[in-house]
Amino acid sequence: MARPSTIEIPIVRAALKAHPRRISAALTEVLRSRIMKGGLASATRLPASRAFARELGVARNVVTEAYAVLAAEGLVSGRAGVGTVVQAGVAPQSNDAVRQPANRRQGHLPSIPAPSQAPISSDAPILFEPCVPDVSFLDEAAWRSCWRRSLRRGVSGDYQDPAGEAFLRTEIAHHLSQTRGWTVGADDVLVTNGALEALNLLARVLIGQGDWIGMETPGWPAAREALRIGGFEVRSIKADLDGLDIDDLARRQASPRAVIVTPAHQFPLGGRLPADRRRALIAWAERHDAWIIEDDYDSAFRFDVPALPALAAMDANQRIAHVGSFSKTLAPALRIGYVIGPAALRERLRELKLLLNYHTATFGQLAIAQFMADGLYERHLARMRRLYSGRRQAMVSALRGVSALRRLGHDGTIEGIEAGLHLFWRFPSSRGAKEVADRLARSALSLTPIEAYSDGASPWHGFLAGFTSPRMDTELSALQAALTVP
Amino acid sequence: MARPSTIEIPIVRAALKAHPRRISAALTEVLRSRIMKGGLASATRLPASRAFARELGVARNVVTEAYAVLAAEGLVSGRAGVGTVVQAGVAPQSNDAVRQPANRRQGHLPSIPAPSQAPISSDAPILFEPCVPDVSFLDEAAWRSCWRRSLRRGVSGDYQDPAGEAFLRTEIAHHLSQTRGWTVGADDVLVTNGALEALNLLARVLIGQGDWIGMETPGWPAAREALRIGGFEVRSIKADLDGLDIDDLARRQASPRAVIVTPAHQFPLGGRLPADRRRALIAWAERHDAWIIEDDYDSAFRFDVPALPALAAMDANQRIAHVGSFSKTLAPALRIGYVIGPAALRERLRELKLLLNYHTATFGQLAIAQFMADGLYERHLARMRRLYSGRRQAMVSALRGVSALRRLGHDGTIEGIEAGLHLFWRFPSSRGAKEVADRLARSALSLTPIEAYSDGASPWHGFLAGFTSPRMDTELSALQAALTVP
Repeated sequence: MARPSTIEIPIVRAALKAHPRRISAALTEVLRSRIMKGGLASATRLPASRAFARELGVARNVVTEAYAVLAAEGLVSGRAGVGTVVQAGVAPQSNDAVRQPANRRQGHLPSIPAPSQAPISSDAPILFEPCVPDVSFLDEAAWRSCWRRSLRRGVSGDYQDPAGEAFLRTEIAHHLSQTRGWTVGADDVLVTNGALEALNLLARVLIGQGDWIGMETPGWPAAREALRIGGFEVRSIKADLDGLDIDDLARRQASPRAVIVTPAHQFPLGGRLPADRRRALIAWAERHDAWIIEDDYDSAFRFDVPALPALAAMDANQRIAHVGSFSKTLAPALRIGYVIGPAALRERLRELKLLLNYHTATFGQLAIAQFMADGLYERHLARMRRLYSGRRQAMVSALRGVSALRRLGHDGTIEGIEAGLHLFWRFPSSRGAKEVADRLARSALSLTPIEAYSDGASPWHGFLAGFTSPRMDTELSALQAALTVP
Repeated sequence: MARPSTIEIPIVRAALKAHPRRISAALTEVLRSRIMKGGLASATRLPASRAFARELGVARNVVTEAYAVLAAEGLVSGRAGVGTVVQAGVAPQSNDAVRQPANRRQGHLPSIPAPSQAPISSDAPILFEPCVPDVSFLDEAAWRSCWRRSLRRGVSGDYQDPAGEAFLRTEIAHHLSQTRGWTVGADDVLVTNGALEALNLLARVLIGQGDWIGMETPGWPAAREALRIGGFEVRSIKADLDGLDIDDLARRQASPRAVIVTPAHQFPLGGRLPADRRRALIAWAERHDAWIIEDDYDSAFRFDVPALPALAAMDANQRIAHVGSFSKTLAPALRIGYVIGPAALRERLRELKLLLNYHTATFGQLAIAQFMADGLYERHLARMRRLYSGRRQAMVSALRGVSALRRLGHDGTIEGIEAGLHLFWRFPSSRGAKEVADRLARSALSLTPIEAYSDGASPWHGFLAGFTSPRMDTELSALQAALTVP
């Protein structure tokens, strides 16, 4: 990883440390000041967002947001393939760090299957990055108090229960009973390092030699890659705007041993699996002696529509494993998720978790449990639902305004807005979507393409747009500016 | 899991909450009081330690320590196969909770290889449990301050670097440079959920179809089981009192692709791999194009002997992956370890970590990094070295006293005391060890048998005895009382 030129990392880092809460704004400020004062020359290429974020030790969206703001202010712009480029200033000193080439001998390495598709990557700032919650509305005083109280319990000198802390398991069970119409007990819950670990555990427990796993397409690429690299055969099952296409599943000559489904909010199309499909899915599993893995993605956020129960709550015959997470409701960096497996799986999941990493780290579990026990989690969810609902409306209005620009040669529609933290800005063909992407690239901007979530050719065209960013309004302005035909 | 009879869990739990720092003493107090006041009748069987600990949400050693103290006080005793039994008191009310049978249908499940040996389990309190650090000497005020400062950085809304927090990686690299004679950079470090995850990652990256892994025997059973259940072929390589037997490795017709070795402190025999074996091991790896996985177990604790460098520091050709952990130096419940892989492995480890669980949880990493950056970690290690060194001397003296009791029909020796947190109380044959185990069982006590660490028949006889427990003196008294021939 080359050190980005012309930006002195320690200085920038020191500036950011002074503003831990509004780090993206602080970075914007630092860069803006450098450009205005001539410290960064016209045509200077700013570091690629990914590498820059890594260097600074910040999340990538911190950098992409700063770039988006600077682009909106006309201080930077970009061309596809070139990156983000300064529009005004004077020539800087070069202080590139020289790194030794890593010319080392390499022993035989087995061939891990390479990820089957390129990661979603672009050096242009991504507008409306999906799947990133706005943590700035977390009640930090209450949050820190929960951690303090957890820390006050003292450090244990022993390894803990592989299933997780009893306190957190109790609170999760209680929460599900209250919000998802589903009575589970603390003993039913196994705490994991996020939903991704839960899926990895379930695949190891459920999938035998010669079995295959069905996954929605479009769907969660990280899960698909993780399972494939884990040696499992994963095949795509179609999903549409209502969620998993059960007919496509039922048509298969050989059935999958398990199917991973996102009934609360199909990722990424955004639908909520309707009652008839739910019934058909469960009947399918019965008929084929198969398992359903319910990835309860984004269930906490629904708007203007009634709550749906967990699919697993309808599971009379105990063949649904339910996966939940605090990554979207609190923060991904906590790495806390859980799986609620049928009784038949519980001991095996526990044993496997023990062998993978003993158990999930204790303090984070206790802090979240305390946050839940004090009623703060419910309050946080309610607040975030209101907030996201408002932002969603604003984004829908803004995008409809842009969509109406017929001169752009496209006619986008907006899908999947009943639930979740992002919408799907859909185009009937790749042509319209490409036109939008090209115009954005000319302003050094980009959107997350829906095509990145399909395994193979995508029948869907358009973009994901998260409405969680605190800088959404600025980003919307940048988008509108970039798409305005002069 | 049946609710233990006669002990009202919520009441006990409430009593324990009042004494979070000295939870084992608090439990002892609660039980003692119940017995003395007649709340627990003579001949009442106390709950099995494992189940009881789980019910209470405490570490098992909390319960086993409490039982050991009560046994030393003559309030309880036990017989093998029966458990811990109250010696004096009046009849209690039974308040057994009735639980519904979990009579649920079970779908087809693939055959995960079952763990190939029974876990080390006994319901008799285990004296001197090994591998459990004494956390009561952690400077809690400083420790909590480190967490507070980490929390003050705020919660990130994004997923973080799969390799871990730059702050912690920098501190780990610095620590290794200072203490292990090994210059590594922050970029060389990948943070994991403990050493066990590090081994799982390395096996996935290094071991291909048809390859096998060599592991010391006796050795770490969890690692062996984890790799086997992960689908890897694991074969035993002999270890003796000096560590891995390189001749046994070199004699194999087909070489393993990788061998896992504990050069700083062979687990469980306790030796430190001498210089000639180190050289021979590295030469073997060169010759066979094989990899060495250095599990740097217990390297922080050595007594009366010079420090040995990390094996990986001698690795001119970059074929050693080094695994470290904070489980023994701080606390296992933190679940923070790391792997320092040769350059050839680094990107693959990072990619695999991303696919297993994105990254290790952030706050724990930052808190440990802060603890290191403030010099508190080095201070803690120095203090613990002094403390453990003193306890080790006391235990050696006490056991030598017991060993001298020829009437017991054995002649134990004490091995592996140059380093680590436990010693190996060795007997020349299974007869002497069995005699000791039987006598302890009559007092409802037990020791961890060395046989549990061998894969197949064990050439070693005796017990592991950790000298980390703050109640070691009490446990030594209980041991001496149980082994005193009347």
